[in-house]
Amino acid sequence: MDENPNSWTRRQFLTRLGLVGGAAPLYHAMGALGLSVIPGAHAAPTLPAGSGKGKRVVIVGAGIAGLTSAYELGKAGYQCTILEATHHIGGRNRTARRGDKLIEVDSVQTCEFDDDPNLYFNCGPARLSYHHTEIMKYCRQFEVQLEPYVNDNRNAFLHSSTAYGGKPQRAQDVLTDQRGYISELLAKAINKNALDQPLTSEDRDRMLGMLKSFGDLDKDFGYKGSTRAGFIDDGILGAGHAKPPMPLADLLKSDFWYFKTQFSYLWDQSPSMMQPTGGMDMIVKGFLRNIKAQIIRNAPVVGIVNGEKDVRVRYKDPSGKGEQEIVADYCINNAPGFLMAGIDHNFSPDYVSALKAIKPGSLFKIAFQAKRRFWEEDYQIYGGISWTDQDILQIWYPPHGINRKKGIVIGAYIFGLGPSPDGVDIGDKWSRMKLDERLKNAIIAGEKIHPGYGQMMEKGLSVAWNKVPHMFGCAFDWEEEDRKTHYVRLQKPEKRHYLVGDQMSYLPGWQEGAIRSAHAVIEDIHKRTTAA
Amino acid sequence: MDENPNSWTRRQFLTRLGLVGGAAPLYHAMGALGLSVIPGAHAAPTLPAGSGKGKRVVIVGAGIAGLTSAYELGKAGYQCTILEATHHIGGRNRTARRGDKLIEVDSVQTCEFDDDPNLYFNCGPARLSYHHTEIMKYCRQFEVQLEPYVNDNRNAFLHSSTAYGGKPQRAQDVLTDQRGYISELLAKAINKNALDQPLTSEDRDRMLGMLKSFGDLDKDFGYKGSTRAGFIDDGILGAGHAKPPMPLADLLKSDFWYFKTQFSYLWDQSPSMMQPTGGMDMIVKGFLRNIKAQIIRNAPVVGIVNGEKDVRVRYKDPSGKGEQEIVADYCINNAPGFLMAGIDHNFSPDYVSALKAIKPGSLFKIAFQAKRRFWEEDYQIYGGISWTDQDILQIWYPPHGINRKKGIVIGAYIFGLGPSPDGVDIGDKWSRMKLDERLKNAIIAGEKIHPGYGQMMEKGLSVAWNKVPHMFGCAFDWEEEDRKTHYVRLQKPEKRHYLVGDQMSYLPGWQEGAIRSAHAVIEDIHKRTTAA
Repeated sequence: MDENPNSWTRRQFLTRLGLVGGAAPLYHAMGALGLSVIPGAHAAPTLPAGSGKGKRVVIVGAGIAGLTSAYELGKAGYQCTILEATHHIGGRNRTARRGDKLIEVDSVQTCEFDDDPNLYFNCGPARLSYHHTEIMKYCRQFEVQLEPYVNDNRNAFLHSSTAYGGKPQRAQDVLTDQRGYISELLAKAINKNALDQPLTSEDRDRMLGMLKSFGDLDKDFGYKGSTRAGFIDDGILGAGHAKPPMPLADLLKSDFWYFKTQFSYLWDQSPSMMQPTGGMDMIVKGFLRNIKAQIIRNAPVVGIVNGEKDVRVRYKDPSGKGEQEIVADYCINNAPGFLMAGIDHNFSPDYVSALKAIKPGSLFKIAFQAKRRFWEEDYQIYGGISWTDQDILQIWYPPHGINRKKGIVIGAYIFGLGPSPDGVDIGDKWSRMKLDERLKNAIIAGEKIHPGYGQMMEKGLSVAWNKVPHMFGCAFDWEEEDRKTHYVRLQKPEKRHYLVGDQMSYLPGWQEGAIRSAHAVIEDIHKRTTAA
Repeated sequence: MDENPNSWTRRQFLTRLGLVGGAAPLYHAMGALGLSVIPGAHAAPTLPAGSGKGKRVVIVGAGIAGLTSAYELGKAGYQCTILEATHHIGGRNRTARRGDKLIEVDSVQTCEFDDDPNLYFNCGPARLSYHHTEIMKYCRQFEVQLEPYVNDNRNAFLHSSTAYGGKPQRAQDVLTDQRGYISELLAKAINKNALDQPLTSEDRDRMLGMLKSFGDLDKDFGYKGSTRAGFIDDGILGAGHAKPPMPLADLLKSDFWYFKTQFSYLWDQSPSMMQPTGGMDMIVKGFLRNIKAQIIRNAPVVGIVNGEKDVRVRYKDPSGKGEQEIVADYCINNAPGFLMAGIDHNFSPDYVSALKAIKPGSLFKIAFQAKRRFWEEDYQIYGGISWTDQDILQIWYPPHGINRKKGIVIGAYIFGLGPSPDGVDIGDKWSRMKLDERLKNAIIAGEKIHPGYGQMMEKGLSVAWNKVPHMFGCAFDWEEEDRKTHYVRLQKPEKRHYLVGDQMSYLPGWQEGAIRSAHAVIEDIHKRTTAA
């Protein structure tokens, strides 16, 4: 079998892309429960009001899992304190607007976008999946306004340096041809009675009918191009004629089909996707409006000691001088596990090994302010993503602010896809570049998709999550083997200490994973509290 | 070949769905012009300011083609008068809100939706296609705010009375299985070397790789279900397992594959689609803010006489008493052609025959106000369309107002699909029902998709365009044969009289067709004016 030359080895991606388990009878049982069941859909814990009275919980990290914990436990009467190592609330849920500072270990950037509610950059998560039911419920509860996010725009580009003469192709053209060629080849095999298992004559006819429609074949089951990809001529005042198809060999030579042409069929990427109007951190603001918890910023944790009857959490005083300690019944820890292995603690060796097994991803993003919305004006692209085999991987066009003057474009969205041809992880490579080098290289790559790109862009901003203090990574993930041992270990508390976050889910990089991990912990704490 | 049992014979639909023309060298020439070319993209005429000074144009009908004509000619100094037969400006671009009256020949409905900017019903066109460049340009010029319209929601339902035990299926499940089965069958044929034309060994390997990815096949090229359709179990805190696929026979028995599974690949239906924020008539309001023309409402035209040096248009006085006449240099007529054949005129017989050849469609829509957004709360459906083989054909969920209290659902969107099993055009059938019968029948059908539907719906409203006075149809279309004769005839003026509207395009039912027809006429008038 031919393997992808760029070796897309990232576990988080392959898990969701390729994992095919066996059919389980459970599914049919669930189907019987009614149409509204999405397998895996999960109700948030509803703890009785007052059930946590007199109990104290210290939450390390004001990311989404921490905020979820504080919200749910606070409602039940637990006294919660959130210790956040930085000034920022929300963890990787972060929206940059004019004046915001982005801090990496060796740099500080100030966002210089124009002052306009449409001009923002979601540095971390930037879309919501319809079946991420828990984050959707919080949006509803907190009245966070949502709008459609365009993930799948057929008029955006697919670009391969090695196929189609290096010219970007409209996704619509590629997808139409792909379906056409596949249908044509299968229809011809059926007409030759070349299938393994012969179909009934009725099914055979319907199968041929389906292929004709699926691929837009002609009456002889040939694929000669399709008006689904538009017309070579007017097509509005006069009868239109289909474009000729591009050669199949070009499609096969490209890297499109490794996953890019299937992208919108992936479970977490399928329409409808959504985004909060005005920026992803509207969700954080929603939590903050509804949380009853003390939040202490600039308070990095330096020690956690589990005792018989309590857990003691030591943190640097926000003043910068000295340390403080909180004594609590439970500690919910939302910080990256491998960082927690390095502070003072009395964790057991197996727990420490498990914490160290968590792997940080190297997700990297660049945003530019565009002087004008050239993707709309010149290309009829309204939202969505162009894909390229260059390092930048993706260009995102904003689905909001259509037809306004300016917009924020994501000029690179690099998630760890394994080593680039020179053997270096691409995200790592970009994170090591100087700030201006990152922007310069993103412009060079963008020019291949949109000639004149550099002239239309200004005020670039980048984030390398693996260089962000107190984070040092993104989309925390696991080796498959470690899931069976270390991950399972961390799903259980170490005495009074619990680890949460997307790191404690099979959904690294998605807020839903963080929320669901918090829900599991909250339920466990509730059990212990009420059993006591 | 198996034919669709419901015989989707409508020309407007088949033209866009199935028309496959030959490959033309023109396309490659256009490609050389640059990436931004969408074949057929067309610049609006830009007439020199003042070039129409002293010329008078009377425009019949304040639909989109009429408004376009008035706007463009007005900018050039032509003195334009629009005669509108009704009180409503915008033609079939019509948005119903609380208090609005919908008039049919034998009924009047008053819209009783709550008073809320989110609660509206686009009675006519309801979405914009990214490549409908001219209407998109007007939206930009008039600062009409646009937002993504969700046309393709994989979590909406496909429902067939004859397959899957009559149970609605999530589109995501059906599409995943369809791609899986097609890929599996073709991969197996390739592995048997059963293709007509053997592929090179490299292409063969890449083809197999593509199919594996396209259908999410296992390592033996079998399709056993895919996590792309979600999980049978949690899949977030634990490793997820794929749903088993539904039997291929069920897919083939359904009517999904005749076009429904291909719907979002059609040229005019592909993402991104858009809608104006707040209702489609925001476009009409945009025109009205920018038009320099006299508009006379309630002024149906009763006579048109072409003279040597002018054209005389007679209309009923809005007072209801007597008639008025306008003498103009040109008449641009936006009214349904077949209606114009019936007034006083001195048109030539071939022109009259051509006018009469235009066929009105029987597009029919029902809207309900939902007491709560059950599609979001209970089904995780955010915008998009559910399809059924019942008469109502579609249920549309609003892409706007997500998570608010109420919403407007389109409970039937029937476009003429040819005769139903009882031999009657389905749109006609519904238009003949009494108002309450229409609503009752739409509820009965909706219950099959969403049990309890009737309890959640209120304040239903319907529009049968073939019963709307001065319209008597919708999505005006042509027999293929008549396109070559009568349509071509009407593309030329009858002396000083021009016909415009979607009826004068290959895009019936789309505003872009209307606009483009007006642009062609404006250019011709400009030529005549400047040649004179």
